[in-house]
Amino acid sequence: MNDRRYDVTAIGNAIVDVLAQSDDTFLQEHKLPKGTMSLIDALDAERLYGIMGPGVERSGGSAANTAAGIAMLGGNAAFIGKVSDDQLGEVFAHDIRAVGVEFRTPPLTDGLSTARSLIFVTPDAQRTMQTFLGACTAFGPEDVDEELIGQSRVLFLEGYLWDEPRAIDGMRKAARIAKQAGCKVAFTTSDPFCVDRHREEFLELIGGDVDILFANEAEIKSLFQVDDFDQALQRIRGKCEVVALTRSEKGSVVATDGEVHVIDAEKVDVVDTTGAGDAYAAGFLHGYTQRKSLHDCGRLGGLIASEAISHYGARAERDLKQLAAKV
Amino acid sequence: MNDRRYDVTAIGNAIVDVLAQSDDTFLQEHKLPKGTMSLIDALDAERLYGIMGPGVERSGGSAANTAAGIAMLGGNAAFIGKVSDDQLGEVFAHDIRAVGVEFRTPPLTDGLSTARSLIFVTPDAQRTMQTFLGACTAFGPEDVDEELIGQSRVLFLEGYLWDEPRAIDGMRKAARIAKQAGCKVAFTTSDPFCVDRHREEFLELIGGDVDILFANEAEIKSLFQVDDFDQALQRIRGKCEVVALTRSEKGSVVATDGEVHVIDAEKVDVVDTTGAGDAYAAGFLHGYTQRKSLHDCGRLGGLIASEAISHYGARAERDLKQLAAKV
Repeated sequence: MNDRRYDVTAIGNAIVDVLAQSDDTFLQEHKLPKGTMSLIDALDAERLYGIMGPGVERSGGSAANTAAGIAMLGGNAAFIGKVSDDQLGEVFAHDIRAVGVEFRTPPLTDGLSTARSLIFVTPDAQRTMQTFLGACTAFGPEDVDEELIGQSRVLFLEGYLWDEPRAIDGMRKAARIAKQAGCKVAFTTSDPFCVDRHREEFLELIGGDVDILFANEAEIKSLFQVDDFDQALQRIRGKCEVVALTRSEKGSVVATDGEVHVIDAEKVDVVDTTGAGDAYAAGFLHGYTQRKSLHDCGRLGGLIASEAISHYGARAERDLKQLAAKV
Repeated sequence: MNDRRYDVTAIGNAIVDVLAQSDDTFLQEHKLPKGTMSLIDALDAERLYGIMGPGVERSGGSAANTAAGIAMLGGNAAFIGKVSDDQLGEVFAHDIRAVGVEFRTPPLTDGLSTARSLIFVTPDAQRTMQTFLGACTAFGPEDVDEELIGQSRVLFLEGYLWDEPRAIDGMRKAARIAKQAGCKVAFTTSDPFCVDRHREEFLELIGGDVDILFANEAEIKSLFQVDDFDQALQRIRGKCEVVALTRSEKGSVVATDGEVHVIDAEKVDVVDTTGAGDAYAAGFLHGYTQRKSLHDCGRLGGLIASEAISHYGARAERDLKQLAAKV
């Protein structure tokens, strides 16, 4: 893998996050299912934004966060995703390029605005996301940059993309290019509700093109519709080259056909879990592309995730290279 | 294994526990290392007993507790261990037979009294044990009951026995008989300080005669002198047929050469952790001798351990057969 220009090319929704502190009463009043991501339309986005408390805007998007984390760790990362040629689109492009991620997907010019995710953070550090996809819905196979993928060691895809039919065609094209180019395909199941919406497609994908799978405990249980973690672990093990299952305060389990690593969580005061999974994937994939042991990949993932949850917002606020030196 | 009379024959110290509630100040004042077992002599035992709060006497002993648990689960269990022909010796023999364990080791008649363990339970549910071994120190090869072991599916040995040279000879004899009879050898490392005292012997034993190893997290880390659980797991995996590593609120990890199961802990209000490991071994070995899957063995272990820690004292207070029906 040494002659490639990029460690990881990530494909995902290009989203600007709007974070605001909230509470359980607000979530209940507005019927927002806590801890998950729901899709909303433009009208609902306006309505919710109107009643949301004072917010902080930050560039987000699950796979985009992972690409940003890899760049901040000193890796070479690229991102493919669709913004609009509006102000939030400029913000997104500026921020992801500013951390050193290659981003050259042409912006949409036909009127749909850049995606935003209204994120309600409750005092228990959970985040409840209401996402208006906007320009992301225009992402399709024509946006898949063959040259980028051919120059990458790992292609990273987010499950959220399966919510849009044209994006699925794009993912299939990207995976095909990766396979032909000898680039590993990594995939995150994104969200237990997303798994519920696309269980059959995800199972087929995992049994086929996926080399490296990221899923949290709720997602992997949902995938196999079991209520016990070990049962899910037994079902997924060996289905792809590497599976990395994240378990919040229980750490993570990293498994291949032969190895199983049980990695403890870092001790941290949790402020906001937004982006924990994205950060874990960043740390893990950075370790993986640096040819670290799986034990160290898992530890790096946990370490970067612990940074992400120690502050408000998904992208890192500390020097990740310095942090990673601990592993 | 179907034609054998006993599921498990356990060999260990035959001890009567004296439990009293205590606090950190008392432990510090009397320099008692919290959460561990220390050996004391007859004089210290008298002195400590004199200043101990009001106690409750219960038959104990680590491997004896495991044998009792197996019998209470409906399994056939036997116990080999040395009491004296005094009142506490009668109490011990009565209690273990009353739950259905075969116990026929001849009592000592030469004056050393039956072993007792002064157990100080602090409000954080930890137990600190000061053990006077008494008659247990007289245990030797002549007490190893060849017929019992030859009729057993599993021979279960406790690491605490390695504190007495003649007991070690007894253990070696027992393991040899077991191997010849096609009886599996199970072993518990007992206590991190015990591992520290006998690291080399334990490593040799585990690499040789042991088929089924029980160790808690502190013990397995101590065995390999590493401070990371996963590193210890990688070191121990494959060294014997099955390893069952208990992790308190993190559950347990059960590993063979091919399988690794990550079993969650049962949810329980912890009152007193005395006997948690013994109970886990009981549940696990009962499952094992009933030919349950390793996943179910681990779950049974966790379930029986959760019963043990939900009350004061090591031996079960609930109907274990009913409890086990949950798995």
